[in-house]
Amino acid sequence: MKRYFIYLSYNGKNYCGWQIQPNGITVQQRLEESLSVLLQEKIEIVGAGRTDSGVHASFMVAHFDSTKEIDSLILCKRLNSILPDDIAIHKIVEALPDAHARFDAISRTYKYFVTTKKDPFRQDFAYRIPYMLNFELMNEAAKTLFDYEDFTSFSKLHTDVKTNNCRILHAEWTQENDSCWVFTIRANRFLRNMVRAIVGTLLEVGRGKITVDDFRKIIEEKNRNVAGTSVPAHALFLTDVSYTLPLNPLKGTLVCKRP
Amino acid sequence: MKRYFIYLSYNGKNYCGWQIQPNGITVQQRLEESLSVLLQEKIEIVGAGRTDSGVHASFMVAHFDSTKEIDSLILCKRLNSILPDDIAIHKIVEALPDAHARFDAISRTYKYFVTTKKDPFRQDFAYRIPYMLNFELMNEAAKTLFDYEDFTSFSKLHTDVKTNNCRILHAEWTQENDSCWVFTIRANRFLRNMVRAIVGTLLEVGRGKITVDDFRKIIEEKNRNVAGTSVPAHALFLTDVSYTLPLNPLKGTLVCKRP
Repeated sequence: MKRYFIYLSYNGKNYCGWQIQPNGITVQQRLEESLSVLLQEKIEIVGAGRTDSGVHASFMVAHFDSTKEIDSLILCKRLNSILPDDIAIHKIVEALPDAHARFDAISRTYKYFVTTKKDPFRQDFAYRIPYMLNFELMNEAAKTLFDYEDFTSFSKLHTDVKTNNCRILHAEWTQENDSCWVFTIRANRFLRNMVRAIVGTLLEVGRGKITVDDFRKIIEEKNRNVAGTSVPAHALFLTDVSYTLPLNPLKGTLVCKRP
Repeated sequence: MKRYFIYLSYNGKNYCGWQIQPNGITVQQRLEESLSVLLQEKIEIVGAGRTDSGVHASFMVAHFDSTKEIDSLILCKRLNSILPDDIAIHKIVEALPDAHARFDAISRTYKYFVTTKKDPFRQDFAYRIPYMLNFELMNEAAKTLFDYEDFTSFSKLHTDVKTNNCRILHAEWTQENDSCWVFTIRANRFLRNMVRAIVGTLLEVGRGKITVDDFRKIIEEKNRNVAGTSVPAHALFLTDVSYTLPLNPLKGTLVCKRP
């Protein structure tokens, strides 16, 4: 039995998120089915995180175990050829047997794209805001995220996680071009729906509906009902997953840069 | 009666091309309908060119006449709000009464995007080639286009144009990143299907199926049946239309840079 890490990206439009669930097709399911067919044994996959329905990943990491002798390059090619166009496998690497795509990940990075103009080529990948936004204020509010650990206010109600604590490592709006802005957020972990709830609430700051101080109070209330509406999923990308150390020094650096 | 130039871009995926036709919805039709509703009179639009079904335009120019007093900024805003997300109006400018979006255009530029790797985020905008291509040879072949004027070999059969002559002003493959290549072609005019037939034949050069000399002979035969298969429409973009002079010096430079 050997463990393999797999690096991939996917367009989330046609999937009910990453994790297998009864009501629709997920990326994990597509991957497990395809790997099981190719390797002729039941394959189970563990992802570095769980993207929600409709959310994209330009960089995702997962692991699986197999009893078969695997040529990673050939498996990668065959996997790409049976998977649909909206899932791309970039690399498959043998890892140490106890390396874990989820538990060994020290941070995840998400980006949320907002356009202030109509863009016929980004309608599937950016959220269009038909009003003016004050990004300076939004960045001021984003900075307050560093002062807190409990993000109950930005979590989905009734989830089964034990704690709502997260360490925010980066949170910033940057301008990509004259009409596109990106919110980049990195944390050790994220609660369900957290990025979209934060962005939705930051947009209320940007519109002048609430102040930076209100934003801070919303976090402090630890109550999901006081935060702003979640923004749509189609503009959210998981863009990076970081690990501390190369997990398999024998096979080269497992923790590769974006493929 | 005043004449207006309109600058726009559109995602061609859901349209049967630019020009009005009986069998499906076109961009020209959508525009004429929307302008007619807003201006409360029958508006007819003349485009700088005709993109085929499924082809995109990141920069398109057209003109129309209206008897109404028009505030260009307000009309542009209202037009954007009633048009679907896949058509964006960037600017509307009053022009001299005899300025003509089609006849006064001195060149059009198209770009064709090819990816050599699976890319879940460009599947709608680039053509994936599952084999290796020799872009140096493809550029060598592209250069031969400058030596000819009659491109019957790359035209659609049975069209109603009087001449198949075009002056090629630019034709080159450039690398956008490690997996994406772009073919940029500029000419005074294009025949129907011409860019896609040229790209399809250049790809045969790149695969080693035909030589640069064969490519030259194909042009010289002036016979559509000897050229390569046309490549798909979804990776083709009209990216620029050029005019010699500002058409309306009174109202500022009509021939604006890409909006």
